[in-house]
Amino acid sequence: MPGPRRFPAPQSGLVVPRFGGVATFMRLPLFDDPAELDIALVGVPWDGGTTNRPGARHGPRQMRDMSTLMRRVHHVSGIAPYTLARIGDLGDAPVNPASIDDSLARIEAFFARLHRAGTVPLAAGGDHLVTLPILRAIARRRKLGVVHFDAHSDTWDTYFGGHKYTHGTPFRRAIEEGLIDPRRLVQIGIRGSLYSRNDMTWAHDQGIRVITIEEYFALGVERVIAEARRVVGDGPTYVSFDVDGLDPVFAPGTGTPEIGGYSSHEAQRMIRGLRGLDLVGGDVVEVSPPFDTSGGTALTGVTLMWELMCQLAERVAARRRPARRKPRRR
Amino acid sequence: MPGPRRFPAPQSGLVVPRFGGVATFMRLPLFDDPAELDIALVGVPWDGGTTNRPGARHGPRQMRDMSTLMRRVHHVSGIAPYTLARIGDLGDAPVNPASIDDSLARIEAFFARLHRAGTVPLAAGGDHLVTLPILRAIARRRKLGVVHFDAHSDTWDTYFGGHKYTHGTPFRRAIEEGLIDPRRLVQIGIRGSLYSRNDMTWAHDQGIRVITIEEYFALGVERVIAEARRVVGDGPTYVSFDVDGLDPVFAPGTGTPEIGGYSSHEAQRMIRGLRGLDLVGGDVVEVSPPFDTSGGTALTGVTLMWELMCQLAERVAARRRPARRKPRRR
Amino acid sequence: MPGPRRFPAPQSGLVVPRFGGVATFMRLPLFDDPAELDIALVGVPWDGGTTNRPGARHGPRQMRDMSTLMRRVHHVSGIAPYTLARIGDLGDAPVNPASIDDSLARIEAFFARLHRAGTVPLAAGGDHLVTLPILRAIARRRKLGVVHFDAHSDTWDTYFGGHKYTHGTPFRRAIEEGLIDPRRLVQIGIRGSLYSRNDMTWAHDQGIRVITIEEYFALGVERVIAEARRVVGDGPTYVSFDVDGLDPVFAPGTGTPEIGGYSSHEAQRMIRGLRGLDLVGGDVVEVSPPFDTSGGTALTGVTLMWELMCQLAERVAARRRPARRKPRRR
Amino acid sequence: MPGPRRFPAPQSGLVVPRFGGVATFMRLPLFDDPAELDIALVGVPWDGGTTNRPGARHGPRQMRDMSTLMRRVHHVSGIAPYTLARIGDLGDAPVNPASIDDSLARIEAFFARLHRAGTVPLAAGGDHLVTLPILRAIARRRKLGVVHFDAHSDTWDTYFGGHKYTHGTPFRRAIEEGLIDPRRLVQIGIRGSLYSRNDMTWAHDQGIRVITIEEYFALGVERVIAEARRVVGDGPTYVSFDVDGLDPVFAPGTGTPEIGGYSSHEAQRMIRGLRGLDLVGGDVVEVSPPFDTSGGTALTGVTLMWELMCQLAERVAARRRPARRKPRRR
Amino acid sequence: MPGPRRFPAPQSGLVVPRFGGVATFMRLPLFDDPAELDIALVGVPWDGGTTNRPGARHGPRQMRDMSTLMRRVHHVSGIAPYTLARIGDLGDAPVNPASIDDSLARIEAFFARLHRAGTVPLAAGGDHLVTLPILRAIARRRKLGVVHFDAHSDTWDTYFGGHKYTHGTPFRRAIEEGLIDPRRLVQIGIRGSLYSRNDMTWAHDQGIRVITIEEYFALGVERVIAEARRVVGDGPTYVSFDVDGLDPVFAPGTGTPEIGGYSSHEAQRMIRGLRGLDLVGGDVVEVSPPFDTSGGTALTGVTLMWELMCQLAERVAARRRPARRKPRRR
Amino acid sequence: MPGPRRFPAPQSGLVVPRFGGVATFMRLPLFDDPAELDIALVGVPWDGGTTNRPGARHGPRQMRDMSTLMRRVHHVSGIAPYTLARIGDLGDAPVNPASIDDSLARIEAFFARLHRAGTVPLAAGGDHLVTLPILRAIARRRKLGVVHFDAHSDTWDTYFGGHKYTHGTPFRRAIEEGLIDPRRLVQIGIRGSLYSRNDMTWAHDQGIRVITIEEYFALGVERVIAEARRVVGDGPTYVSFDVDGLDPVFAPGTGTPEIGGYSSHEAQRMIRGLRGLDLVGGDVVEVSPPFDTSGGTALTGVTLMWELMCQLAERVAARRRPARRKPRRR
Repeated sequence: MPGPRRFPAPQSGLVVPRFGGVATFMRLPLFDDPAELDIALVGVPWDGGTTNRPGARHGPRQMRDMSTLMRRVHHVSGIAPYTLARIGDLGDAPVNPASIDDSLARIEAFFARLHRAGTVPLAAGGDHLVTLPILRAIARRRKLGVVHFDAHSDTWDTYFGGHKYTHGTPFRRAIEEGLIDPRRLVQIGIRGSLYSRNDMTWAHDQGIRVITIEEYFALGVERVIAEARRVVGDGPTYVSFDVDGLDPVFAPGTGTPEIGGYSSHEAQRMIRGLRGLDLVGGDVVEVSPPFDTSGGTALTGVTLMWELMCQLAERVAARRRPARRKPRRR
Repeated sequence: MPGPRRFPAPQSGLVVPRFGGVATFMRLPLFDDPAELDIALVGVPWDGGTTNRPGARHGPRQMRDMSTLMRRVHHVSGIAPYTLARIGDLGDAPVNPASIDDSLARIEAFFARLHRAGTVPLAAGGDHLVTLPILRAIARRRKLGVVHFDAHSDTWDTYFGGHKYTHGTPFRRAIEEGLIDPRRLVQIGIRGSLYSRNDMTWAHDQGIRVITIEEYFALGVERVIAEARRVVGDGPTYVSFDVDGLDPVFAPGTGTPEIGGYSSHEAQRMIRGLRGLDLVGGDVVEVSPPFDTSGGTALTGVTLMWELMCQLAERVAARRRPARRKPRRR
Repeated sequence: MPGPRRFPAPQSGLVVPRFGGVATFMRLPLFDDPAELDIALVGVPWDGGTTNRPGARHGPRQMRDMSTLMRRVHHVSGIAPYTLARIGDLGDAPVNPASIDDSLARIEAFFARLHRAGTVPLAAGGDHLVTLPILRAIARRRKLGVVHFDAHSDTWDTYFGGHKYTHGTPFRRAIEEGLIDPRRLVQIGIRGSLYSRNDMTWAHDQGIRVITIEEYFALGVERVIAEARRVVGDGPTYVSFDVDGLDPVFAPGTGTPEIGGYSSHEAQRMIRGLRGLDLVGGDVVEVSPPFDTSGGTALTGVTLMWELMCQLAERVAARRRPARRKPRRR
Repeated sequence: MPGPRRFPAPQSGLVVPRFGGVATFMRLPLFDDPAELDIALVGVPWDGGTTNRPGARHGPRQMRDMSTLMRRVHHVSGIAPYTLARIGDLGDAPVNPASIDDSLARIEAFFARLHRAGTVPLAAGGDHLVTLPILRAIARRRKLGVVHFDAHSDTWDTYFGGHKYTHGTPFRRAIEEGLIDPRRLVQIGIRGSLYSRNDMTWAHDQGIRVITIEEYFALGVERVIAEARRVVGDGPTYVSFDVDGLDPVFAPGTGTPEIGGYSSHEAQRMIRGLRGLDLVGGDVVEVSPPFDTSGGTALTGVTLMWELMCQLAERVAARRRPARRKPRRR
Repeated sequence: MPGPRRFPAPQSGLVVPRFGGVATFMRLPLFDDPAELDIALVGVPWDGGTTNRPGARHGPRQMRDMSTLMRRVHHVSGIAPYTLARIGDLGDAPVNPASIDDSLARIEAFFARLHRAGTVPLAAGGDHLVTLPILRAIARRRKLGVVHFDAHSDTWDTYFGGHKYTHGTPFRRAIEEGLIDPRRLVQIGIRGSLYSRNDMTWAHDQGIRVITIEEYFALGVERVIAEARRVVGDGPTYVSFDVDGLDPVFAPGTGTPEIGGYSSHEAQRMIRGLRGLDLVGGDVVEVSPPFDTSGGTALTGVTLMWELMCQLAERVAARRRPARRKPRRR
Repeated sequence: MPGPRRFPAPQSGLVVPRFGGVATFMRLPLFDDPAELDIALVGVPWDGGTTNRPGARHGPRQMRDMSTLMRRVHHVSGIAPYTLARIGDLGDAPVNPASIDDSLARIEAFFARLHRAGTVPLAAGGDHLVTLPILRAIARRRKLGVVHFDAHSDTWDTYFGGHKYTHGTPFRRAIEEGLIDPRRLVQIGIRGSLYSRNDMTWAHDQGIRVITIEEYFALGVERVIAEARRVVGDGPTYVSFDVDGLDPVFAPGTGTPEIGGYSSHEAQRMIRGLRGLDLVGGDVVEVSPPFDTSGGTALTGVTLMWELMCQLAERVAARRRPARRKPRRR
């Protein structure tokens, strides 16, 4: 049904209560074929790269559940994403809890098919290693800039005597594989005790712009946004949001909490501050429901997906219109 | 797709892990049209009839979530339901949290459409009042027998000065409306302190067979099964399972717990004991997730749905075969 | 005992430990007759207007429980409310979980009796619809100004096809019924995604002063207080505090959380900032214990009741003294 | 008001919902003067004798909360306690969390006053040491028999180098002080690993009848009841129920759980089996809400209080009638 | 210190409270060298074989925590294990959360060192795959018999398209590798829906004695014990206890719960029933703390370790005495 | 082993996963002899001074558990504490849950032994009364200055009719006993309702510098640090951190929460701001795990221990070097 489905719409909470119905992302219809969508909401239920407390494999389901609290129009920007782009729930990427290698291959293949269809991915993790196969799928031909929200740089080299693929290493691997331009990578909120004084040396040597939480508080949100925009510039940019960048009171349901982060309101403002950038995809990762049975972390995570989805929808619409002028930042 | 969908199959946990994918009942496909199904699994996310602790409106979603732990073949009876009948998830019945009357009408209409299509309903509540509109939809032309598992008789007359529709009154209303033959109604597990010595008088006067929990323990499971079979006999029979019939340790997530009930294993045995009866539908109600965030009650509830679904599937297959002989009880 | 009870006092935690004794609001004595009180603390255990996650019916009991942590003197203002006014726990307003209409009538009657006795109400909800019958009871003869703390404007028109009475509509109804002067209504903290771009049109057309959370953060607490005081002016004013105005980390136990709100400390400062206004009553609503079994939300809610109670007590004392000069704002 | 209050009645859940109102035991009125009551329900919010996990000081409040689920007539015996005796909530005994000695004195004084008024006590602990001052108050002139449900014998001598008053020692102290006749003391459910092989020697030397959980299962409930009746005989008898006698799945909220106990249904049957004994008081202790935020343990505890209260009420009524014949056991 | 440490003793709860001190298994001293011990308590904090809900990697730590509730003498058998054998906490086996193969190798090496020292292992999992490397370490030269408590046979072949090492396959692998004699393998409590009717075919073909939960209830505990003893006979026997064999109310903290199992008391009786067998080691696996934050599952698991440890200690002592007569079964 | 153990090092999370191994503070080795250490991490598992909600006795164990998330180098100051000082886990101080007096004596004796060995204590409570015996042990010969983070002044005189030793009185006792110079005592974050207007009179009369939370927010973190440094000056200074000084969202697991405190990030900044002071010991108290089963409060508490430990380590190293110049504040 290409006609009616061109702009799929979520069920309304004024007609069917929000706690009713099968839980899909944002109460949108389910799709099998990415070609029917401009933006695909996808779960990646996998935490095989987790070296500490597991559970992020359960993230997509709880995020779908809490997403049914979302409505249709952004209350600040006025963006109505479902009128700008064909957005739907594409289900979960296939994974294998018994194999890292197999999972990385399956996830990459899923997102590669999506990418070939010209669809923009917005993923819900899973642990942070899932960002790597997504980047492999969408950044083969051009290096991407990345706005990376996190408490950890995730640029460690190896764990446990040489193991290269964990949720602590994806950004190092992505840079080594030429998927990310490190000078267009900005990391916001880095903190937490270190294994050694040299932990951040590699990151700095690559030219990554690391904004520690201390610098974050010193600069203030507006200047952090400006700096992030400066770093990624006009080129194609991916947004990766690890919920442990937030203070743990806003995201207790995560595997490696570090006290002293930003608030969810500040995170909302930062994502809104990315308006008008050439955004090509994104993810929200490390929501681990077993450590937050109340669902508060998932609610926060999926609200940040909503914020990012609004930006992506506007960008998709802008690309469609040839002579469109650049949207103003709020 | 009438061909491939004739016997819909759940996703296998050996291929896609159970925590992956959008949570539908038993990981079955979603359907809009009841005519495509022999047995429809339906949620009724409504607790407007609850006079005590609310939350059963959230039951269907958590039961769908936990149902993804189910597999395909019953380990005792050997019944493989998905090879016997077309079974799928038909979504949730429409409800209105702001109106009892409107909700009763909406639920009845939903199940009436299903009934007209010849589809057998298996519902997940919701509070126990949802059984009333289901019975209105499927028992208009013939009175049904009912096997009713519960701690409470649910045959009170009115609450709060004359209010007739609450989760404490559905079986009284259903008898008054001629939907249930009270002499073919057996209630198993009744207990809990009473408002007055006359609370059970009406039930006894109607000829309802009330098996209190004390009689239950005195008889033992096998004789309770035999008695239930004797009461409902060969006529069309509905099964209604209120999870508060179970001991609260097996179902803490419910609104009106009463200590001292049966175990989930005993409940399984009792449902298996209904094999071969002329079953025409059923429900599992009063799962209230806010009182059991771990999901144990929902797991129990949905496993009992699985048990009942196996019985219904065999019955559907039996009706299809003209000269089929009655299946033996295990 | 009019003599000794004239200024009822709470049990002291230095004599009887706070976890001991029957839990009444602030450990105050229980009263049946409002005429014995200047300020009545009242529970309204009802959530029949809730369109989303229920549970606020359990709010008053948990708030009473957590209120036993309160002491006697305000640590900033120095107000000692129990020396200024006769304050007591008047129990719960009668409600009917099976009927919205009946509940609205019962609640109104309860507060009308209280109002006729000249007693100032301070209510603990219950969902936000309970504010409507309270206003009906106390604002019949004069329109009130309202300081309204909330994430939602609660001025939607109807739900589920025409249903006018839900926790999303009380302020629209109250304005339509002439209970509130919309130009003296200020709403603080409004946010969350919208059903449509026109959601706020009616509110703006009425002249309601809506301070979104974004404007709130831009202005800062002090200027928000000044603006709120300007809007309500010298006229009689009611204060309604929906705990979902707070960031969900401060009030996870609520039915419709929206990330990105104010902190409980900021809420304290805002209530203190109302000092000297002509306050005639208030409520704290939407505390939903099933979503916060630890009681943190109830502790926050009841501490805000304490803050408001101090203001009300000073106001009551001021009215008693004919030539009293207006108390200074801190 | 001796007239109307002679037989106080609880609020009905059919008129005011059970979650409404200030939580007193069984929704009964509050009393200050024991002389107005035949049976006083009393909380003892104290856990100063706890050597392991604390929290039982919070027991009475949560038990009051859950008691509002109780109704008026026992569904098996038909006993309607509120028509047989004047029963009310007498509040909490005074305690001192900073002193064992002072607490023992305060609790004893409270129950002594109650005893002098001829009122039968039914207490909600608190840890098990609270049984000692209750016995001091009511057993000074005559040794009592005791039916003692517990996982532990609580007859250890000292802890931590000579400390004699802990929740592991009350029955030893009570025997030493001549409050209990050890040959009329039966302990049911004893289990758990021991400090040494001699742990039970003292108990056996005193002639205490210890029914270990292994013997309990071997005998079966009916023979355990018969044995308990044989041990306590016709003399005045106290019933002390430590909820850790139950299997921890029925009572997770307790300080010293031992796996492998009886069920709550079996406990109900055992209390019912005490019908007709010369019961002079009782307690339910060691409900520790911090270890069971859901309240299931408190619900179980207070339902057992209800069971015991029915027995006590019948006994009170029997004493009132001069030529009353002994009630039959069910 | 070979002298004083020959029979290490736990800290006493009568001297240092049980909640004090660093949590080791049973409050025993920590050891580095297995040669100092007859029986080594070992954690295996790994769940890399888990195909469903993870978290068993956290099991050992919570089991150590709850083990501090244990005392010194078994209350039924009178066994005082610390007087019979040198028992201590040997810490955790090394694992690699990022690699199944590496983990299997590390775990095997750890237990091989222990085995070479002549020390009997008693392990706390971890998921059930950890049993495989333990068996590889101790069963190279002789096939073992196994008493296997579980809801699942764990003899599936592969998952996710050929992956052979998961927590659903260890017993198949162990039989294929010649570590277990399948005719001396008894599985108790098997249940739960199946992937296909042939799921159990391989097991039956191997001669495994599968006692389903239905047969278990039909036989009763005593005859199940007798049957288990018959199957394993006089040969060397390992005991593997997956806590999901228990009913989920006794072990909610596990990854793959199946309703309708045995009770913890029955499990205790079954382990006691193994007295006198030639026990050579054991494990308790699949305790998953994130799904049971209260620790009840860990308490159950570690109490079963205590039961098993008593049996192992008696066996160790028996081997030490040349002409020892076989201990009687209780 | 004085050689290798001179600078004990924690197990690395890159080698052994953090959830593995026996949980000691910071994964450091266990020690019996304080002489082997410059800084001893010690638990004090005692809450006998708690007048309100108990549970802090469980604090040390959960703090040890969460401490395994810590690494080795401070990410802001670059301090690598394990290269500066011999730091280890000295186990728990002995306590007696059945006696305040005995516990105070045991704790003092433990820390006195530590003090005689020249070791700096860093303690994890326990309730706030444990600070008193620590000060008795280390401040006999010289009055200390104290930086005291708390919501409460803890300078009340008596409770419950004359009882002088509770967690509300340690700083009054310490001043009376000459352990603290009140003019070098600064209290940060004081708030919460008062028993009477005179509650703070004694504190002010002694010359204590009380920074209420209102003044705290008015001054801002930097000026609060400056003021704290001014108050304690160059003399020997102890740091006592009661986690209820934090806003309850950062520390829900505590006995006497007061809404409206500082954030954990602000607390980190304040402790870092103490750099270079003559620090002689410290504690983090009132972590009560039963009120925060998720462990978030313990994570916060132990991260603050880490912050304080870095300061202490630098101070220890400075004392060792004769002509060392004062470290700069960051």
